[in-house]
Amino acid sequence: MTRQELINQIYRKKSCLSIGLDVDINRIPSHLIEKYDDPVFEFNKQIIDHTMDLCVCYKLNIAFYESIGVEGWSSLAKTLEYIPADIFTIADAKRGDIGNTSKMYARTFFDHMDFDSITVAPYMGVDSVAPFLEFKEKWVILLALTSNVGSRDFQHHTDRKGEALYQKVIRESQTWAESDRMMYVVGATHPEKLKEIRALVPHHFLLIPGVGAQGGTVDEVMKNAHVPDACGLLINSSRGVIYAGDDEDFAKKSRAAAMELQQEMAAYL
Amino acid sequence: MTRQELINQIYRKKSCLSIGLDVDINRIPSHLIEKYDDPVFEFNKQIIDHTMDLCVCYKLNIAFYESIGVEGWSSLAKTLEYIPADIFTIADAKRGDIGNTSKMYARTFFDHMDFDSITVAPYMGVDSVAPFLEFKEKWVILLALTSNVGSRDFQHHTDRKGEALYQKVIRESQTWAESDRMMYVVGATHPEKLKEIRALVPHHFLLIPGVGAQGGTVDEVMKNAHVPDACGLLINSSRGVIYAGDDEDFAKKSRAAAMELQQEMAAYL
Repeated sequence: MTRQELINQIYRKKSCLSIGLDVDINRIPSHLIEKYDDPVFEFNKQIIDHTMDLCVCYKLNIAFYESIGVEGWSSLAKTLEYIPADIFTIADAKRGDIGNTSKMYARTFFDHMDFDSITVAPYMGVDSVAPFLEFKEKWVILLALTSNVGSRDFQHHTDRKGEALYQKVIRESQTWAESDRMMYVVGATHPEKLKEIRALVPHHFLLIPGVGAQGGTVDEVMKNAHVPDACGLLINSSRGVIYAGDDEDFAKKSRAAAMELQQEMAAYL
Repeated sequence: MTRQELINQIYRKKSCLSIGLDVDINRIPSHLIEKYDDPVFEFNKQIIDHTMDLCVCYKLNIAFYESIGVEGWSSLAKTLEYIPADIFTIADAKRGDIGNTSKMYARTFFDHMDFDSITVAPYMGVDSVAPFLEFKEKWVILLALTSNVGSRDFQHHTDRKGEALYQKVIRESQTWAESDRMMYVVGATHPEKLKEIRALVPHHFLLIPGVGAQGGTVDEVMKNAHVPDACGLLINSSRGVIYAGDDEDFAKKSRAAAMELQQEMAAYL
C-alpha cells in the first residue's frame, strides 16, 4: 500500500486506529471453541466484520499464531486473506537478523503472505533491515522507543553528544529509506517523548502501541504527534478492543471499544 | 540441558562445534527434492547422521523453515526430534517483544518444541527476555556483538563513561540470570573484541557465529575467548559445513568440513 492510499483511508474513515489481533486461544469465548474447527480464525473474522469501517489497519502478532503450531499459521493465513485489501496490515514479528536470514523473513511475510509491513528490531543494523526494503510498496516499521518497562534498559543509552539509542536509530535509519517505506514504533507510554520524536521525523508514520491495556491515551498521542493533512499515526489497541467482551456478543463489544477510540481520533482528522 | 552436561559433552568429543542447519530449499541437492516427500528433513537427517559425533550443538535458523510455510514447521519439528537428546539445540529465532508476547514465543520454542535455548534480541530490555528465563534448564542466548556489517550501526553506541551498547547489554543482563542460564552471541568477525568480552564474562558461554562463510577463524576465537576447563564457547558454522558439497555425497563432505573445524578445536580441549 502506498503512503497516499493509507492517508486517504485515514481521512475517509476519520480514524487512524490499528487493531491488534493478538489472539490468545485461552482467552477467546468458549462457544467459538465448541462450534468451530478454526476458532481463532472465526474470532478474527467476527472482529473484522464488526470493526473494519472503524479502523485502517490490522496488526497481527505473529507470536500468538506461532504458539499454536501448524494450525496457527493456517489461522494467520486465513485471517490475512479475509482482511479487506484496502486495509493496511502489519506482521508484528519484530524480526531482524543477518542479511541472508532477513531475506528469508522478508520472503515469508511479503511474498508467501501478502502483509503490507513488518515490524523489525534495529539491533543488528542496516543489513538486517535492508532485505525488507527491497519489496515494492511494502513497509518496514522499525522499533524505536517501545511501550514496555524494559524500553528504559537500552533504548535510552546516550552518547557523549547527548544522543540516545532510540534517537540514533531514527536518525540513521532515515538514510535507509524515505517516509514512504519506513515507519517507527513509539510507545504511547512515553507521551513526553512523542513531540520530540515528531520533530525528528516530521513526515514519517509512527505506529503507537500502548494505548489501553498498557496505559497511554489517544488524546495525548494525537496532541503530541499528529501531522496536519497526513495524520502520520497508526494508534494500536489490541487487548482493549478484542477482549472488550468475553461472551457471544464479544464482537459487538469490540466494535463499541473501537468506536470509542475512533471518535477520539475523529476530532483531529 | 545443564551447563555441566554441556561442558562434559565438549570435553568428551573434543569439540565445541555448533552446526547451523540453515537449510535453504533452493540450495539442497536435487536428488533429495526428487526422491523424498520432505527433502529438508532428509537433508538434515543425513547431515546429523554424518556429524553428530563431531559437534555438540545444532542451531536451527527458524527463518529458513518459516519461509517454506506449514511444511517448514513440520520439517523443523521432525529435525528437532531426530537430534540426539544429549546434543544441545538452539532455536535461532532472535525474538524479543513485550512480556505477554515473549511468553508466547517461549511457549512455542520451549514447551511445544523442546529446544534447549533460544537467541533473543535485547533491544526491548528485561521484560522482553524474562519470560524465556522461567523455564528450567533452558537458556537465553542474548545478542551482544553480532557478526554482520550492521553490528557497527548501533552496538557500538557509546555513553559518556565509555560503555558501548553491547557492553551494557552484557553487564545489565548479568543481573537477569547467571552463567547457567544465559549465553551471549559474539561474532567471530570481531576477534579484537573477544578477549575484552571474555574479561566481562569470565564464566559465560559465548555463541560465536561468523566462522567460515563470514570470515572468522576457529584459532582466533579459541585463543581469545576459550575458558580453561569449561571451554565457554560454542563456535557455529552453517553454510561452511552444510553446503560443503552439493551432490549425492553432500553429507560426507559436510562431515569432512565439520571434522576440519573439530580438529582445530581439539588442540585446545
